[in-house]
Amino acid sequence: MSKMQKSLAVLLAVCVVFFGFVIVRIGAKPNVVKAASIPKDEYDPAVWGKYYPLEYESYMKNYDMSASPTGYGGSLKVQKSDMQPELFENFKGMPFSKDYTEDRGHLFALEDIKDSKRVGPATKGACITCKTPYIEQFYKEDGWGYANKPFAELWEKSKHPVSCANCHDSETMNLRVINPAFIEAMQRRGVDVTKASREEMRTYVCAQCHVEYYFEPETTRVVLPWDKGTKPDEMYSYYADKPNGFIQDWQHPDSKAAMLKAQHPDYETFSNGTHGKSGVSCADCHMPYMRKDGQKYSSHWMTSPLKTLDASCSPCHTQGSSWAMERVKTIQDSTWQMQHTAGTTIARAHEAIKKASEVPNVNQEELAKARELVRKAQWFWDIVAAESSMGFHNPDQVISTLGQANQFAYEAIDAAERAAGMNIY
Amino acid sequence: MSKMQKSLAVLLAVCVVFFGFVIVRIGAKPNVVKAASIPKDEYDPAVWGKYYPLEYESYMKNYDMSASPTGYGGSLKVQKSDMQPELFENFKGMPFSKDYTEDRGHLFALEDIKDSKRVGPATKGACITCKTPYIEQFYKEDGWGYANKPFAELWEKSKHPVSCANCHDSETMNLRVINPAFIEAMQRRGVDVTKASREEMRTYVCAQCHVEYYFEPETTRVVLPWDKGTKPDEMYSYYADKPNGFIQDWQHPDSKAAMLKAQHPDYETFSNGTHGKSGVSCADCHMPYMRKDGQKYSSHWMTSPLKTLDASCSPCHTQGSSWAMERVKTIQDSTWQMQHTAGTTIARAHEAIKKASEVPNVNQEELAKARELVRKAQWFWDIVAAESSMGFHNPDQVISTLGQANQFAYEAIDAAERAAGMNIY
Repeated sequence: MSKMQKSLAVLLAVCVVFFGFVIVRIGAKPNVVKAASIPKDEYDPAVWGKYYPLEYESYMKNYDMSASPTGYGGSLKVQKSDMQPELFENFKGMPFSKDYTEDRGHLFALEDIKDSKRVGPATKGACITCKTPYIEQFYKEDGWGYANKPFAELWEKSKHPVSCANCHDSETMNLRVINPAFIEAMQRRGVDVTKASREEMRTYVCAQCHVEYYFEPETTRVVLPWDKGTKPDEMYSYYADKPNGFIQDWQHPDSKAAMLKAQHPDYETFSNGTHGKSGVSCADCHMPYMRKDGQKYSSHWMTSPLKTLDASCSPCHTQGSSWAMERVKTIQDSTWQMQHTAGTTIARAHEAIKKASEVPNVNQEELAKARELVRKAQWFWDIVAAESSMGFHNPDQVISTLGQANQFAYEAIDAAERAAGMNIY
Repeated sequence: MSKMQKSLAVLLAVCVVFFGFVIVRIGAKPNVVKAASIPKDEYDPAVWGKYYPLEYESYMKNYDMSASPTGYGGSLKVQKSDMQPELFENFKGMPFSKDYTEDRGHLFALEDIKDSKRVGPATKGACITCKTPYIEQFYKEDGWGYANKPFAELWEKSKHPVSCANCHDSETMNLRVINPAFIEAMQRRGVDVTKASREEMRTYVCAQCHVEYYFEPETTRVVLPWDKGTKPDEMYSYYADKPNGFIQDWQHPDSKAAMLKAQHPDYETFSNGTHGKSGVSCADCHMPYMRKDGQKYSSHWMTSPLKTLDASCSPCHTQGSSWAMERVKTIQDSTWQMQHTAGTTIARAHEAIKKASEVPNVNQEELAKARELVRKAQWFWDIVAAESSMGFHNPDQVISTLGQANQFAYEAIDAAERAAGMNIY
């Protein structure tokens, strides 16, 4: 080749390589993880960690005990009633009034449930469902029979808390779900989770546990109340009308209302919100992609994305991390204010109904209305208060739900006053 | 050149042109508008329209009278009380109880204010401020003196409703603001609007009118109550404490509370929300870029972005227009529900205070508390109810504000019951 031919060829090569690189970067996909040979019944995360050291190292950060930067929640063993004394009245007569701590990370799952004052000799095996990968074994051996076994027996057999095998197939490393309650609830909604896309699985692995549930009274099996939908009013309606009859978790000793206890409906709340509706997965924010020594991996430190704000938010939001922090703080402050207001009104409603019920010749029909209203108010409040994001997973739905909870609680007070003939109208 | 040299050169040229085009597209900026020679005191939009036919054609679409696709608002001359009968009680004793229509487009500004039952022989010139570009002339001639002149006199002189000259300098076509109340309020916040960036001006031209204001009792001059901030509680606090004394727009004839009327705080609401905090301007959504025959222009049909959803939302949101419509509808439904609930509780509070005040030996101290609470409740409700977006401009703030309004209204009822010795506590 002539000198000019050579120069042109070099220039062309540089050009193609440069723009080729740009195009490859734009189309870059996460590396497909190479499967290692981990036995099928291996539940020890340390064994998995030998093959996946970066994932394991980040998973071990779940031992971190720190508050969220906005001051709401975090991995802390503090009583929720420290900030919300209304919990004592609202959960009177049931275990959550004795002990209701903030959730700590996955690594503490078995330790914390054993220490909980909510657990006793009568506690059933159903409670082990979301604490350990051994649930796979228990269900294989006994089907739903495990749910009715003594909790202490299954706890002894569970050598590891929530870990790799809860979400991964050890042979293919594919994402998987093992909580039978989730698989069944999705089936009833027409979703076959074995056919889910990888992006859907990046939500389902979390959703298999971070959801509202109840123990079916006859069998103690775990049921997710989604047959009518996953919004607060739809789940409330399920509990009122379900074929097996009206559900009551306990009777409130003051108001004598038939109460429900809500449980961490993170998936339901998130999936109806703007991130969920946009196809964002739980892992996109809670398990962001990280790099170490040039190697890319998913963080397995499942914590508040506020602790990994740049990695979690900036791939989509270019407004900067102080913008993101301000937005989250604003939403959480509004949520907290309305949660505390509604919770306090509900506590007053229980007391008002009690006082009304002691009035001679009280109107029983109005009193029954007041009890139904305080049950409903507390459900709408608790489905937010028991959730993990202090409103961030779905700000408009959450704040609206709390506003309604407060309204129902005042309607309960009104009904109690009418029952006692003491209202101004 | 040899055949190979030629081939290489052609390939290189194609490569450079293609990737160069990609880079130019990524960095593309809107065309700068060419100024025409329009006289300084020309307020007739038809004259401007000769030079800017596409802008003018879209401006004339402001004659369109259609509802918003979500069913909330739109350019319709319907009474708001059709959907919210609680307005009759809440605005009792003041003009908005007689006539409170949905706002129609800018082109109807002069026609609709003349037809309004809220306007009469005593109406002052201050009311012309946001209806016409002639305000520039009135203020030049008399300063704030125009605000105290008879409204009818200034209306006669105003030959055109809100149009080109309200927002553009006729000689440079630069964006400008002419409402002296806005310029002064921004000055008090330390902002010199003559130094604003073009992107800021794309919000300020709208903000000069789409804001909360009051007429200073002594002078009738227009004042925007932003000295403590632009959030609902900050403006409420301004009205309680301002140096010139407590502000009262009217006394409610039932509760005898000293009331405030809020006015379309679109800018305040939006600028504290996620779009505003991200640097989005009003024009980005309400005046999206359009194309006709290859020419790019800003739409001057100032209406709900739901009517131009693809052009308004998709430049930033790639989730598709049905996603955007669903999000807006969800937010607006929650807002409407809480707005109607809070408005209804406030109406009850006025009645409860009236009933309590008729009780012999009523506790005057509790009654005064009840009146302050219903004033506050109604402010928190009205600052949303008078806003134009049914919550969309700032969902979490708006729904939280309504939740608080409802709470304050119940506290007012509680206080009234205590005043009358009729509560259950």
